[in-house]
Order: sequence, then structure tokens, then C-alpha cells
Amino acid sequence: MNQTSVSLISVNDWVSQILGEAKHKSPAAQASAYAPSNIALSKYWGKRELSFNLPITGSLSISLAEHGTKTGLSVIDAPMHQVILNGKEVSANQSFSIKVSQWLDRVLPNVLKLRVDTHNTVPTAAGLASSASGFAALTLATNSLMGWQLPERQLSALARLGSGSASRSLWHGFVKWQAGEQANGSDSVAFPLEHQWPELRIGLLTVSSQKKAVSSREGMARTITTSALYNQWPQQAESDLATIETAIIAGDFETMAKTAEHNAMSMHATMAGAWPPLVYWQPDSLTQMQKVWQLREQGLPLYLTMDAGPNLKLLFEAKHQSDVEAAFPEVQVITPFG
Amino acid sequence: MNQTSVSLISVNDWVSQILGEAKHKSPAAQASAYAPSNIALSKYWGKRELSFNLPITGSLSISLAEHGTKTGLSVIDAPMHQVILNGKEVSANQSFSIKVSQWLDRVLPNVLKLRVDTHNTVPTAAGLASSASGFAALTLATNSLMGWQLPERQLSALARLGSGSASRSLWHGFVKWQAGEQANGSDSVAFPLEHQWPELRIGLLTVSSQKKAVSSREGMARTITTSALYNQWPQQAESDLATIETAIIAGDFETMAKTAEHNAMSMHATMAGAWPPLVYWQPDSLTQMQKVWQLREQGLPLYLTMDAGPNLKLLFEAKHQSDVEAAFPEVQVITPFG
Repeated sequence: MNQTSVSLISVNDWVSQILGEAKHKSPAAQASAYAPSNIALSKYWGKRELSFNLPITGSLSISLAEHGTKTGLSVIDAPMHQVILNGKEVSANQSFSIKVSQWLDRVLPNVLKLRVDTHNTVPTAAGLASSASGFAALTLATNSLMGWQLPERQLSALARLGSGSASRSLWHGFVKWQAGEQANGSDSVAFPLEHQWPELRIGLLTVSSQKKAVSSREGMARTITTSALYNQWPQQAESDLATIETAIIAGDFETMAKTAEHNAMSMHATMAGAWPPLVYWQPDSLTQMQKVWQLREQGLPLYLTMDAGPNLKLLFEAKHQSDVEAAFPEVQVITPFG
Repeated sequence: MNQTSVSLISVNDWVSQILGEAKHKSPAAQASAYAPSNIALSKYWGKRELSFNLPITGSLSISLAEHGTKTGLSVIDAPMHQVILNGKEVSANQSFSIKVSQWLDRVLPNVLKLRVDTHNTVPTAAGLASSASGFAALTLATNSLMGWQLPERQLSALARLGSGSASRSLWHGFVKWQAGEQANGSDSVAFPLEHQWPELRIGLLTVSSQKKAVSSREGMARTITTSALYNQWPQQAESDLATIETAIIAGDFETMAKTAEHNAMSMHATMAGAWPPLVYWQPDSLTQMQKVWQLREQGLPLYLTMDAGPNLKLLFEAKHQSDVEAAFPEVQVITPFG
């Protein structure tokens, strides 16, 4: 896998192209936007190009309704952007500040500096990635502040520059991010699926909310370059995505959830086959996983998915919510189509 | 993968062929033999044919010296074989008895019945497979009892019929089992490597000595039929085997041990990618694995391998034995070339 292929066009050139004259519009004094967090049912694991954050495969997610990020922007008279996270200023040399500022500097006129006031409504201990909802909310708020009125697919591509999975966090419900083929990523964008599934429930099981030792970005790179098993992943991922999309349309919970779990386990398997081995699971993750599998063997239609971290996300339907809550008293239940 | 291809020859016909007239020799009154247990550095994971126990790839093991099985045979006047394990009679309907009796019925004249007295010198709580040393010792003892005087490669093939990894347990030291190509398995046999490595140490870390819920045989079958990642395994396994053999000859501990760990982790990864997911690790396995990785990050040249179970086997050199024993007070250290 060649994940470092150089684009024929720089990110900054591409951003200038799609924004055109809009880049130099006068901003409103302030704007704000909300974007939900999302959990991939068919995972994004592996970049084909680093500068544009282009994925090797497509992915499909479910957004987490009221769990996400609200971001307010206001123009400030200052030499640099000011970033506030959950009410506290983040110093300019921290990676969160650096990433936000880099993204803003790409899309804004040089002289324009903003105060970025970010509030995560993701349960703080849930170990959910906030970068997806964060960059999606930042993109939507900037579009509003600057009066760009960009089409959604371009907003998705801009959000992707900040964080790959942010491309999927612009919408509620099921969202599909297609891998695309263009070198500048113009077709590597997400769009919402029409299908609703009011009975679907997501259960958050938090094993650890500590920052992980190996970032997703680093983990992907290590897996692609050292895990022979990864060679099989792209084909499985695209196949799983198609199966899950079909199951969503058919309202077939078992197929959807089973494929999502198989997909997540296979992603973690590609990591275990990396060198050095990459295992995001904690001992407690394994305890909870085994509990899910035991309950399922006993007849409860309960499935799990996991991202690049130790926490579990349970998949089940509303009619089994009380069973799940009885088995996992600490579970936080989300109603994606609430 | 087609793992159920039908052989052109039955196992019984093949056994009769290689034993020839020897099958009908008169037995001695009694005989006994010892065979060591072994740990694969490059794993056997997947059968290409079930009746002959033929592997998809080659594998390479290190035998565990005085940890193994001693089996005594004596002719009895009875309607069926009598099997004793560690001093206790095993009833005829237990799987251990059934397997031993099936193996004996294949190689002996119909009327000949034996008392099989098996003693495992493997630490009982170590969770080590005793089927490898058990069938190797049974093969050697039967060869002696019957006066077959078979060549070693045929003994290896006969032992393989009882348990795949038994083909490697006929010798001490490093042993290579080549996959072979013949339908009757006549070239799927093991042979010892000449190279000795007196400084090599194996550390047994026992997480659980309970019988596993899913047998290796069943685990292999599930992995091959449901894990897309397994498609990549045969190529990696053959490559790892070659790397490990070269490293043994060169006395290159780091390369040998690193490749063995990578191989084991990749094997477990193919299982995690199966459906339903197959995870032999227990929470405590993960605790010990993380401890090994932390120690290695701190500079200790310590590696691990794991078979289809929750227990760890550590790989290190004699000069680091006290460090390993300090970090893992419960470790049982084996000197394969003692």
C-alpha cells in the first residue's frame, strides 16, 4: 500500500479553488453550529493520501444525535486564533489548538483571526472521539460566519481535512463516506442515507477515557506498513459496507449489527498483526466483550463495535434496552433517531 | 480455502501401505517411550485436509526438553484398549480415550489390545498442549512394541494422524514440519534442525489451565471458513518460517523472537477476524502481554508467543533470566537445550 502518494495539487490550492471569491468575503461578527459525533458501523481504517486525509475504503456511520460538539466563532483582533474547549482556553502549542488553527488558516484570509468556543456534549468519560464532531461543527460554523453557502459535499470535504471521520458528522442518522478516486479528494465526501431506524439504540460502555498511547493516525500508518493481514482489509471493508447499507434499507438488524461487529473485530485484528503489535483493548475491554458474547449466546440480540480505543459501543434494538441496562448498569444509551 | 478435499486414499489404506508386513508382527510384551512437548515459533494454523491432518503451511517449533509425555504400552487380554492418564484410568467414552484408541486401531492388528499408561511431565497447570507429546510418545512406544523400525519421517507422519503438532514432538531442539504436497501426507513430515541454542530460554506464564471452550481443530475450521484475513495467513506463515529458520542458523535472537511474536499475534488476529469472533485471550492474558511490551520498550529483549489459548510463552536469552524472573515471579523457565 502506498499511503504517501503526493497529490498533484496542494491542499491550499484546492481550498482556494473551491472557495473562490468566497474566501475573501467579509465575515459576520459571529456564528455557531452544532454537529453530532458518529460511530462507524463499517470502519475507516487506512489513508491512501495523507495531506487530504483520503481513505483507502468507504465507511458508514450512525450519528449520535445530541452527543456532539457545538462551536461558536467570533472575529477577534489578535495575532492568532484563540481556542476555548469546554470553557477553558487551550494554549496555542497544544495539538488541539494547532489543528484547529491550521484548518482555519487554510480557509480564511490571512489576517482574519477567530475565537473558537467549542463545547463537547459527548459524555466526557465516554471515550468518544470528539475530533469528528469538532471539525464538522467548525466547518459548519465557518461556512455560516463567512457566508460561503457551500454545497454540502464541499463542506464534507473541508471537514475531512481536519479529521477524516468529520466528513461524516455533518448530518444526523446514517451517513456514508465514499472513498472517491480523485487526487484532490473532491469525490471523497459523505452524504446522509435516507433511511431512519427509530428502534436502533447505541450503548456506550466506557472502559477508559484516558488519551490513547497511539493515535488513530499513527495506528493506521503502522498497520498499513507492517501488517500483512491488512492487505485483505480493503476488500472486506467495502464488502461489509455494502452489506450494512443493504441491511439498513431492509431493516435487518441482525445482519447490520453482526456485520458491524465482524468489521470492527477485523479492524482490530489488522492492528494485532502489525509490528510492534497494536492492541487498543484493555483487560476490562475483554471482560465486557466476553460478556456481550455470552449474552448473545444466551439469545440476546446484542452486538458490539469498537474504534481505535478500549471502549465498547453496543448495538441493539429498543425492545431489548431493559435487558441491556440490567446486564450493564453503567451503560449510557443513545437514541440516534430520538 | 478447500479444507475438506477428499484424499484419493483412505488413512487406513495408507497406514497399511507404510507398515506392510510389519503391521502383523508379534508385539513385545511391553515398551515405553518419551517425547517432549513443543512450542511453535512459526505456527500451524489451518488444515488443508482433515483425515490426514495435513497443514496449509509449514511450521517450526522448539521442544521443551524434560517437559513432555512418557507412555508405557503393554499387551492386554481385553476387548478394548485401556487408557491411563497420570495414574488414573480414563473411561472409554472420553475424547482422550477415543482418540488414542482410534489411533491404535489404525496401526495395530484388530485383535491386539493395549494398556496405554501415559504420564505427562508437563507442569499440569501450565496450559501446555499435551496432545503433541502424547501422540509422539505413543507413536515411538508403538514402534518399539511392534518392532516396526520405521524411518523417522514415517513415524512423524503416523504421529501427525493423532495430532498435527505431534509430528514435531519426536525430537528435541528445533524441529521443522514441512507442509508437503502429497494427498496422503507422505511428505508432510517433520525433521529436526541441526542448530543448537544453549542460551535460549522459554518462560511459561499460565493465565488459565482450564480446558478451552473452542478446540484448536474447531478454531482452525472456523477461522478458515469465516475470516477474510486468513487469506493472507499462508503467505505470512511461510515467510515467517523462513525468517525464523535463517535467524536460528545465524543465532540472531532478536529477529527470531520478534518474528515468532509477530507470527503468533497474526495467528490470533486471523481468529479475531472470524465469525463468531474467536478470542482465546483472557483479561489476564492482556495484562501480561502489556507487561511484556512495556518491559521491551524499557530495553529488555523479551518476546512472547501464544498458542490457541490464554497462556503466554516468553522468549529470552539466559543472560536476561534474572530480569524476567524478577518481573514475573510466577514464570516457569525451561532450558530447551539443557
